[in-house]
Amino acid sequence: MQMLKDAILERGKALNQDVLLVDSFLNHQVDVPLMKAIGEEFAKHFADKGLTRIVTIESSGIAPAAFTALAMGLPLVIMKKQTSKIMNGDLLQTTVRSFTKGTQYELTVKHEFLPAGEKILLIDDFLASGEAAFGVLNLVQQAGSEVCGVGIVIEKAFQSGHQRLADEGMGVYSLARIASMSADAITFAE
Amino acid sequence: MQMLKDAILERGKALNQDVLLVDSFLNHQVDVPLMKAIGEEFAKHFADKGLTRIVTIESSGIAPAAFTALAMGLPLVIMKKQTSKIMNGDLLQTTVRSFTKGTQYELTVKHEFLPAGEKILLIDDFLASGEAAFGVLNLVQQAGSEVCGVGIVIEKAFQSGHQRLADEGMGVYSLARIASMSADAITFAE
Repeated sequence: MQMLKDAILERGKALNQDVLLVDSFLNHQVDVPLMKAIGEEFAKHFADKGLTRIVTIESSGIAPAAFTALAMGLPLVIMKKQTSKIMNGDLLQTTVRSFTKGTQYELTVKHEFLPAGEKILLIDDFLASGEAAFGVLNLVQQAGSEVCGVGIVIEKAFQSGHQRLADEGMGVYSLARIASMSADAITFAE
Repeated sequence: MQMLKDAILERGKALNQDVLLVDSFLNHQVDVPLMKAIGEEFAKHFADKGLTRIVTIESSGIAPAAFTALAMGLPLVIMKKQTSKIMNGDLLQTTVRSFTKGTQYELTVKHEFLPAGEKILLIDDFLASGEAAFGVLNLVQQAGSEVCGVGIVIEKAFQSGHQRLADEGMGVYSLARIASMSADAITFAE
């Protein structure tokens, strides 16, 4: 997606060969018209898959996922990284490690919002090693539903996440695939 | 806003006289067309205030704030409850206590995304005692900018937040104001 690649080149910053800073337009300051265009692109790509529900992970996936859900006319469910004392009912949980942030968290969703028999599209901001996506896959399987597509805003194509998801039979559509990066240059994969 | 009040009555649930569960349409499962309507209502109400930037707090404010920003053609900045090791630069921070959740967190924003001289509209999902809003107010003042409006999806009108913000000269616009609630009934203020 050219508009996104332009934003990455003009407004992103590779801190090193692993960490891409896109907080000027994606996950801190947000370019909302770009998020809308991203949502519409995902909706077009996944239009014919018979999807019934969009899932994302708080909080950087919410803006692109909301515009995808709007464009597809589907409900959106935000999986939580933090539970609160008012979160009750039948909860599905799994532990996710974030290598980028050096943390781990309990990914949580209420079963009533992720019922059985759903065809799920996962939208997320980044795909690297795929830990977060596999956490979602785990919860969706616990629920008795199926992940039928994965839409990623920025993929670190030099990491293993895409291949690992493809090995599980999942169709991954990434709008920008970064082949390599350094403080001097960002190169996209074809 | 009638559409929102209907959603609260039909799909919300008062757990007791203090806690309203709206996770079926606002902050876990998300009714995106409703969020879009909410954003457009805020945009209409605050159209003539000369605003330059929308601010919200992760993560439940993001969806309504994104649609407000889109409708107003303004940039959106998401204030963070958690920092990460890749968050660098000149940070503004303040401590916020959440009485509902029994937690506290460091509200954080990069100064470059909240520069001086901005006219800020704060959008948030809930207003109760106003702790989160006062945290934002603190950061905006640190930045040398001004909060010129506060748009709230659901206000607990029986708590002090609205009055405290009004006492600071801030115009608060709440789309649904709850006068009282119990497990049996939710009553709106006029």
